[in-house]
Amino acid sequence: MMIGLGELQTLLVRILAGKGVPEPQASLLAATIAYGERDGTKSHGLNRLQGYLDSIACGWVKAAPSPVIQDVAPGLLKVDADNGFAQVALALARDAIASKARSLGLASLAIANSHHFAALWPDVEPFARDGLIALTMVNSRSRIIVWNGKRKALGTNPIAFACPRQGKPPIVWDQASSIMSQGDVLLHAAAGRPLPPGMAVDREGRPTTDPNIVLDSGSLLPVGGVKGSSLAFMVEVLAAAFTGGRFGFEDESGRFPGAQTSNAGQFLLLIDPTRMTGSTFYPRIESLVAELYAAGAKRLPADRRYSQRARSERDGIEISGGFEALLRTGT
Amino acid sequence: MMIGLGELQTLLVRILAGKGVPEPQASLLAATIAYGERDGTKSHGLNRLQGYLDSIACGWVKAAPSPVIQDVAPGLLKVDADNGFAQVALALARDAIASKARSLGLASLAIANSHHFAALWPDVEPFARDGLIALTMVNSRSRIIVWNGKRKALGTNPIAFACPRQGKPPIVWDQASSIMSQGDVLLHAAAGRPLPPGMAVDREGRPTTDPNIVLDSGSLLPVGGVKGSSLAFMVEVLAAAFTGGRFGFEDESGRFPGAQTSNAGQFLLLIDPTRMTGSTFYPRIESLVAELYAAGAKRLPADRRYSQRARSERDGIEISGGFEALLRTGT
Repeated sequence: MMIGLGELQTLLVRILAGKGVPEPQASLLAATIAYGERDGTKSHGLNRLQGYLDSIACGWVKAAPSPVIQDVAPGLLKVDADNGFAQVALALARDAIASKARSLGLASLAIANSHHFAALWPDVEPFARDGLIALTMVNSRSRIIVWNGKRKALGTNPIAFACPRQGKPPIVWDQASSIMSQGDVLLHAAAGRPLPPGMAVDREGRPTTDPNIVLDSGSLLPVGGVKGSSLAFMVEVLAAAFTGGRFGFEDESGRFPGAQTSNAGQFLLLIDPTRMTGSTFYPRIESLVAELYAAGAKRLPADRRYSQRARSERDGIEISGGFEALLRTGT
Repeated sequence: MMIGLGELQTLLVRILAGKGVPEPQASLLAATIAYGERDGTKSHGLNRLQGYLDSIACGWVKAAPSPVIQDVAPGLLKVDADNGFAQVALALARDAIASKARSLGLASLAIANSHHFAALWPDVEPFARDGLIALTMVNSRSRIIVWNGKRKALGTNPIAFACPRQGKPPIVWDQASSIMSQGDVLLHAAAGRPLPPGMAVDREGRPTTDPNIVLDSGSLLPVGGVKGSSLAFMVEVLAAAFTGGRFGFEDESGRFPGAQTSNAGQFLLLIDPTRMTGSTFYPRIESLVAELYAAGAKRLPADRRYSQRARSERDGIEISGGFEALLRTGT
């Protein structure tokens, strides 16, 4: 079926509300899921819905958390997400952290005791649309081997970066520190497709292309070996040690059958570029973009999402049969 | 010959002074070169000296710049390096930017119109020794193809990150956004060794392992393909567009025969972790480190440098024959 963004969100809110998620929190989670479908990032769209529901149903994630915001320093805000989803905590702090960044030139938000089960680009794109450079990092339960270790020690630990443009949608990238994202592994498992070679190892450290082995007891490899290990380490420091959140290896979701998420943390840095360079920032970014295209870059990060978004806004979002039943019945 | 750090620095200062670099600027550059030798990072040690000298001699870099510091916002400092080396600009702003970070919880320094010809770890390690998390990025003349482009468009654009520990040297990583650093290409060329496969392409985009082709007209590849492209893009935005510096593709060093450096920019972010989590930050980092070792990580970033540093401090620094003549005669 084809469906509009608003209708999809309404259906999702109804399902989440049925599991005890109150407004406006249900709307925040529904938007995150719906944006994934709208923009064609299927790995973080409706295929995540059951994970949200199961993680709540088993008592691992609070359906109705009460996040607490704390102004810890002129440039720093902290939110304890109260064991709820990170989007709820971010929404609570959004205006205050943007205001700090505009006032000081930069500011950082730390979210702890939170669950992030979505892509990161929806977190940073809105700040860049408001003229701020945004960098965010989330840690997650251990899934990758680092620095030639023997077993998994850090999460796939994604990083997202958004750069504002004037009169155009921001340039946004969002990528795991692993060579492949957990979302992609889940998609391969769901489709019964093997992983490409060189992405993962089994529990003995032997190469494997079986996504189910990776999800069960194997490990993904960091991107670029040592370099991806270093990035994943930085994410663990900033998203967990700095925020006061849990490290990926401290995750206890295994005690809650059905839990799909990690209780971890999120780091967000906002920078107001106009405080440094005034109005020259935007034409400079356009010079850079022009050079990248001139050098043959096929497209910039987010371009594919924006194209799919435009199609979805014109034609509606196509929902496949399996998800149609889920949306209509909520189970 | 074996030589002590102090003596090596003295010899280097004399050579730099002979080219018109005044104190204390000569000491800053000498330290950067000497630290590379002391710590065994030969790619950024004495093999860079001639590049410094040539870049000054041809008029491309100012021997005696007068960098100007500007307090642009409560959390932001800007330094115009006056077409000198970045280390001089950083030294000028060091105390002020650390003070801002401690006061606000975080702060950022932007250096423009600067030349960075060294490793980045010497820039961040001292801040972490003083208890600050430090992240820095430098852009450079175009050397890599990004997002499946046809010709080089961005620099190798290194990033360095330093995390403080209590009573122990910080964990510091420093890596190019390319699959191989420019320094490593130079070492391969000097040794007449081919590059490993998969690192670079020639001007037609065909794979090459010839370091001289890469240095002349070829391109390095980004680490992890799209992911390294994204990192290099972020560096270009933060180190050039945000600082008001030049993009790598705007480099004009080609007009100055002998010039080895790029006139570009540097971004530095400092965060005071104790402002967020108080004294719990340090034991948390030790928990993380313990887990990484338990998972079989062979060593942490910087461990190899620290080991070599300890050996150098005990036994002196070994200088090879070719560099001995250069140090003694200055030519």
